Amino acid sequence: MEPLHPLTRRLREVHDELHGEAGGELRSSIPALQEVDPDRFGLALCTADGHLHEAGDVTDRFTIQSVVKPFVYALALTDSGFDAVHDSVGVEPTGEAFNALVLEDVTGRPPNPMVNAGAILTGCLVAGDDATTRKQRIRDGVSAFAGRSLDDDERVSESEKGAGERNRALAWLMKAEGSLPYDVEDALDVYVFACSLEVDARDLAVMGATLSAGGWNPVTGEQVVPPTVNRTVLSVMATCGMYDGAGRWFVDVGLPAKSGVAGGIVAVQPGQLGIGAWSPRLDEHGNSVRAARACALLSERLGMHELRPEGKGLRVVAAHERREGGRLHVVRLQGPLTLRNADEACRAVVAAAQELDDAAHRPGAVVVDLRSVGWLHEPAVQLLCTTVDDVQAAGHLVRLVDRDREESPEWEGSTPESTLESLEEAVAQCASALRPR
Amino acid sequence: MEPLHPLTRRLREVHDELHGEAGGELRSSIPALQEVDPDRFGLALCTADGHLHEAGDVTDRFTIQSVVKPFVYALALTDSGFDAVHDSVGVEPTGEAFNALVLEDVTGRPPNPMVNAGAILTGCLVAGDDATTRKQRIRDGVSAFAGRSLDDDERVSESEKGAGERNRALAWLMKAEGSLPYDVEDALDVYVFACSLEVDARDLAVMGATLSAGGWNPVTGEQVVPPTVNRTVLSVMATCGMYDGAGRWFVDVGLPAKSGVAGGIVAVQPGQLGIGAWSPRLDEHGNSVRAARACALLSERLGMHELRPEGKGLRVVAAHERREGGRLHVVRLQGPLTLRNADEACRAVVAAAQELDDAAHRPGAVVVDLRSVGWLHEPAVQLLCTTVDDVQAAGHLVRLVDRDREESPEWEGSTPESTLESLEEAVAQCASALRPR
Amino acid sequence: MEPLHPLTRRLREVHDELHGEAGGELRSSIPALQEVDPDRFGLALCTADGHLHEAGDVTDRFTIQSVVKPFVYALALTDSGFDAVHDSVGVEPTGEAFNALVLEDVTGRPPNPMVNAGAILTGCLVAGDDATTRKQRIRDGVSAFAGRSLDDDERVSESEKGAGERNRALAWLMKAEGSLPYDVEDALDVYVFACSLEVDARDLAVMGATLSAGGWNPVTGEQVVPPTVNRTVLSVMATCGMYDGAGRWFVDVGLPAKSGVAGGIVAVQPGQLGIGAWSPRLDEHGNSVRAARACALLSERLGMHELRPEGKGLRVVAAHERREGGRLHVVRLQGPLTLRNADEACRAVVAAAQELDDAAHRPGAVVVDLRSVGWLHEPAVQLLCTTVDDVQAAGHLVRLVDRDREESPEWEGSTPESTLESLEEAVAQCASALRPR
Amino acid sequence: MEPLHPLTRRLREVHDELHGEAGGELRSSIPALQEVDPDRFGLALCTADGHLHEAGDVTDRFTIQSVVKPFVYALALTDSGFDAVHDSVGVEPTGEAFNALVLEDVTGRPPNPMVNAGAILTGCLVAGDDATTRKQRIRDGVSAFAGRSLDDDERVSESEKGAGERNRALAWLMKAEGSLPYDVEDALDVYVFACSLEVDARDLAVMGATLSAGGWNPVTGEQVVPPTVNRTVLSVMATCGMYDGAGRWFVDVGLPAKSGVAGGIVAVQPGQLGIGAWSPRLDEHGNSVRAARACALLSERLGMHELRPEGKGLRVVAAHERREGGRLHVVRLQGPLTLRNADEACRAVVAAAQELDDAAHRPGAVVVDLRSVGWLHEPAVQLLCTTVDDVQAAGHLVRLVDRDREESPEWEGSTPESTLESLEEAVAQCASALRPR
Repeated sequence: MEPLHPLTRRLREVHDELHGEAGGELRSSIPALQEVDPDRFGLALCTADGHLHEAGDVTDRFTIQSVVKPFVYALALTDSGFDAVHDSVGVEPTGEAFNALVLEDVTGRPPNPMVNAGAILTGCLVAGDDATTRKQRIRDGVSAFAGRSLDDDERVSESEKGAGERNRALAWLMKAEGSLPYDVEDALDVYVFACSLEVDARDLAVMGATLSAGGWNPVTGEQVVPPTVNRTVLSVMATCGMYDGAGRWFVDVGLPAKSGVAGGIVAVQPGQLGIGAWSPRLDEHGNSVRAARACALLSERLGMHELRPEGKGLRVVAAHERREGGRLHVVRLQGPLTLRNADEACRAVVAAAQELDDAAHRPGAVVVDLRSVGWLHEPAVQLLCTTVDDVQAAGHLVRLVDRDREESPEWEGSTPESTLESLEEAVAQCASALRPR
Repeated sequence: MEPLHPLTRRLREVHDELHGEAGGELRSSIPALQEVDPDRFGLALCTADGHLHEAGDVTDRFTIQSVVKPFVYALALTDSGFDAVHDSVGVEPTGEAFNALVLEDVTGRPPNPMVNAGAILTGCLVAGDDATTRKQRIRDGVSAFAGRSLDDDERVSESEKGAGERNRALAWLMKAEGSLPYDVEDALDVYVFACSLEVDARDLAVMGATLSAGGWNPVTGEQVVPPTVNRTVLSVMATCGMYDGAGRWFVDVGLPAKSGVAGGIVAVQPGQLGIGAWSPRLDEHGNSVRAARACALLSERLGMHELRPEGKGLRVVAAHERREGGRLHVVRLQGPLTLRNADEACRAVVAAAQELDDAAHRPGAVVVDLRSVGWLHEPAVQLLCTTVDDVQAAGHLVRLVDRDREESPEWEGSTPESTLESLEEAVAQCASALRPR
Repeated sequence: MEPLHPLTRRLREVHDELHGEAGGELRSSIPALQEVDPDRFGLALCTADGHLHEAGDVTDRFTIQSVVKPFVYALALTDSGFDAVHDSVGVEPTGEAFNALVLEDVTGRPPNPMVNAGAILTGCLVAGDDATTRKQRIRDGVSAFAGRSLDDDERVSESEKGAGERNRALAWLMKAEGSLPYDVEDALDVYVFACSLEVDARDLAVMGATLSAGGWNPVTGEQVVPPTVNRTVLSVMATCGMYDGAGRWFVDVGLPAKSGVAGGIVAVQPGQLGIGAWSPRLDEHGNSVRAARACALLSERLGMHELRPEGKGLRVVAAHERREGGRLHVVRLQGPLTLRNADEACRAVVAAAQELDDAAHRPGAVVVDLRSVGWLHEPAVQLLCTTVDDVQAAGHLVRLVDRDREESPEWEGSTPESTLESLEEAVAQCASALRPR
Repeated sequence: MEPLHPLTRRLREVHDELHGEAGGELRSSIPALQEVDPDRFGLALCTADGHLHEAGDVTDRFTIQSVVKPFVYALALTDSGFDAVHDSVGVEPTGEAFNALVLEDVTGRPPNPMVNAGAILTGCLVAGDDATTRKQRIRDGVSAFAGRSLDDDERVSESEKGAGERNRALAWLMKAEGSLPYDVEDALDVYVFACSLEVDARDLAVMGATLSAGGWNPVTGEQVVPPTVNRTVLSVMATCGMYDGAGRWFVDVGLPAKSGVAGGIVAVQPGQLGIGAWSPRLDEHGNSVRAARACALLSERLGMHELRPEGKGLRVVAAHERREGGRLHVVRLQGPLTLRNADEACRAVVAAAQELDDAAHRPGAVVVDLRSVGWLHEPAVQLLCTTVDDVQAAGHLVRLVDRDREESPEWEGSTPESTLESLEEAVAQCASALRPR
């Protein structure tokens, strides 16, 4: 038996459904982009732990174009720091098209790094002494996101250079406003180079998965950019990524995303997965018709909308057992330990302590069993620790039981030493301590 | 022992830290808003399961003002449907101030429901035959979000009517453009009424919690608006909620939010909690200085940023045991069953089936234990079911074990009848079936 | 014999040529304006000395609409002074349509009095304590321009009030910006009233003639507004009168003008004449197709373009005679005495004095004969007087001869007493003075 | 005696008054322009018949900068025709600054040729195969306006090239929009060259005088551009010449004008004179403070406002004598024969004919004496001829008497042969014809 993985199946279904969709046009101003077969269509999805699913023409190469913008922004933030980048480029959506000649009134800054003006600037803010080294940094950095070494398509960059009048206008305008304190030709050279990197739909999926995993490439295991940078990049993709249709996209699809004029789209479900989609025909906003539809269908069918809060069924306290004549409470937690759940968990621990106080007027013990908690949100752990400290301060004994985790949270105060891996041992320790000597 | 709940403690810490913050001014154009004590400061937080935490002046009443906009939008979507509302009001951020005279070029629509023009329109789209009944619907609907019956402050609405020249201009402009096919005075009357509803910081926290729980008020248990409406409202708050600073807010705070000129802010962590903050002094964008800072500090300290993907430690497959000489596999899952986890879970089930095929060339059995799964994402369940069906189609026996949930997912195909509540029974059924007769 | 006056004939030719022109549409938003026969077409011309020429439907009444704007502006300037009006309304063209929601950035002023916002404001700046008295002032003032008492069409003003949403928006916006410190409803009431005054093509021609004659109605002989006000009004009509087509109009037609949505246009050739044209069908800018074409054709055929400098043939010095053995020079001037001519005249007088000095080293005499000078530009007269004074100061005798003029220029210095009406007497006086005693 | 010409005296008065004016700053972005003595101040005036008056530093050379724009526009119109130029550049004022990035919505055209974008384009539309020949054409053409061969200041053009980022942005933007179908670097090279031509205040005065005389240089006698081109240039200067202050300038000064960043201003009183003014310190709009004030003062004191209609005293009919027992009428005309005067003249001729008809019922004769008419407006002559034809058609004899003019109007119909130079002869011919044979 060789069953098809259901995610792969879903992907293929969407691919098949949309293959007949012949809407849109090859509408780039870049001549070399006109030479592609408009019927090609690749769809890939990579989970945040690095499993790849594919449908269609996923190994066809195309130039990344504007999809590179969030990644160059990520590299600029990493290399120059948030303050320096933000002094140069805003983070506000504008309701304008990607190539609009709109700079901020007082500062002359581009409104955000997802429009051309912004990306021309962020390309100057990656590490490097000159255009050559900055281009190398971008190639290396974007390759790290993709998990393989990317080539650039010189034919396209040559073609784009000839057609890039509007970008040249933008660059000179920023120069005039004092907001581009770099050589204009170098800046455009780097920008065009970044846009000309060759990717396939699989690459975009892995790049998206890296963003979904906090900047950590789940295929190569490399931390490409710091989590705080990653979070900023996703935030800006959410509000500015889809140009003048960003608001509608977020309402309908609910995923931070970025599209490019060669037909590629990357979309990210934070913590979950990245989607890479590609098909050359574009709608009037410059987004690939099929790729955008594919993202929308996948989001709908797989419930990926970022702002779809779920789960009235969530119960973090799986069990609350009383042992040793009510003097030993075992609180078993499950699910992820998030803020909301931590609140419930804290209440359970406090309730146990209260019961001990009320019933016995003698010190008792509380064992908190975290082994079934899939994931520990660190601030939530800190809240729990605060409660544990309070209960201990009231004279009760507390033991935490947890499995050996790849990344353990930083335990606060006196709590860490009380953490054991075996429930039996914890219960035994407590029972022993409670017994009158 | 009466330990302070750690979330309450965190809230009080933030409240105390910001109490000295004297920046900002009472800058409303509404005379009645000038009469408040500028030093008041209330902070409340309500979890998505309805537990409230408070600090400071949480029972001081103030008018809701623009914070009402997402809620009126939610009611309009509920009463008139997404298409009708979207025909009248866009969902795009504009980079403009809240009272900007910007309508969409071709349609004449307000750009989004978070600016005044948009809210004047959505106030016309709630159920009701006239201004009176629409006002009643808004009072009832917003009260349902807050979980208590809200009064309006007639003194403020009277004061606001006198000062609302710009809103009157907006309304007439929309009338002229044909995008406000309602009586202008009625529309303004309803709008001013909605803004004049009296709330306190606790109310805002519960209203935020209701948005965080998919439109379900966790205090009263009422489903106030459908989840799909709720999702749209949160999406628009994310991209348009904080006016011309929406992009920066989402980068820094990472929470859908809305502020009002009386000093209130509601912020939402989807699935987790709502924050209600209030203090009268405003910054130059019209946001309460302390309330905005409080949201930012809480987001930072409690790790609430919506686009902070976490959890490399997430492992959904808690255990994979082989019994009956390798002919019976028990796959135990834990944590929430999300897309990414479902992927891992499916792979484990497929791996088990593969092992059965390889090793035995005889049918075997797989038991999937879901009891420790805190929450089931329905599309993830469907993916799992698909895999289960595949394995069954290959001749193997599959049993799902799950606890009795408040809301069970809709199982697909033949799977439902195979779900049991007892692992022992499932294992026994399988073992019996596998034994040669 | 009753020959047709050639100007009347020209007018009729243009009228006949354009009668077949069926382009344009009745496109007003004011319902009552839809009820007119779209084929009506009236054309009138009134010279700056009050002679009227007519063609077509010159007695059909229609509402003046926006054609009233320059006249209300003139009344506001007269009643409130230039500074007060300019503090409230700018004088800059905008390149925007007549009803654009554009106010000046810092001041919130309407850009100019020829757009609706500006006219709403100037209507508040005419003399009057309330709407009623301001309406009366406007009716009286515009009637004075037209030379007959004008009625208003209440049916149209009622109709317009219902349709004036955009103007209401403009008024409230100005109110919000603080640039309309008047009651909004009163301001709109006055504006709509002004627009509803009933005129015919003859009225517009006389009103234009009044502007062409420096604010002096050549039919009634009344000075309706001061010349400085009149000059400002014409200047603003020149740069802002034809909305977003003002630049092209001035290039093509070269006349200050103003059009209205009921199909009327007034055009002015300063110092020469006014044109009144009317036909209901409008082009996409809101100008009457036939009326605009009629103005263009008349301007072209009658050489009315204001910036068409002419006349290399101009010679102000008609003759320079030497009498009394070269000791008495008679300089005879002709044409209008403009700056350029004054320059030539001064040179001739100086040359005569020079000749006297060179030839005789004895005092001589210069008689300047101004009787054939059609018109004396006062600053030019002053230049001439300066020269006369210089020549007298050098010891020569000077006599000016001029006919008795309706409006004599103010003569400077000692010159006035030397002005005679008879050349013979002047020559005799000089000859006698030159003779040795 | 060497009396100072009164115009020179006026000029010196204004120069002296403004010499103390120290307002404004050297604020050019062009480094080489910073090196000038900011106290220099030259003022010149040239009449439309070529007489020059001067005050102050009239021989100091400076770069012409934007003052060249109307002249390059004139050359482009001459070389490429109005339609081709208008297809490329609009004629509408915008209310925007000189270097605004504003192109027309649909066409992508610069709004007018007085802003940088427009001048970059018109520089491409003068005759020439490449940048070199176009530069030569501009040097030659502008020199023809000035009446002497102009050099360019290479130091300034080099300096400007380095500082021209905004112009480069404008050029690339137009390239992107398809509205600049020329090589960008060539276009900028030509533009910068044109701006770097060296002039002094006298040159500007002569250039203005040439515009005032219909494109005819009154110093050299050369017709530099056709009158129709000249008229268009003046029209565009009137509405667009002074950038965002064009409206106010036309209200206050009432003269078509153009300023440049090196401190020069040219102003034109059509038919009368040109003013050249220069002083380096600029106001916030980029206009020379002293030069602008000088133009304003001169306009006020010399009554130059273009839209100041004058002359209620104008009477074209100087005398109407009846001879030969009322059967021979002599109508003597004076002043310029304009439209308005022609109307009066026609009425006088018709009245004479009417009197002949009424009194005698026999043919009579009318002699029209035009010798004192300084200037004949051709359309006015045609009106008069029409009347003459009518009177002749009614059976009367008509004779025109006129002096031998440099440029005679084109007489219509049968009239020409009836024109004599001697009144006596005309009267004699008529008297003879009227006598019974």
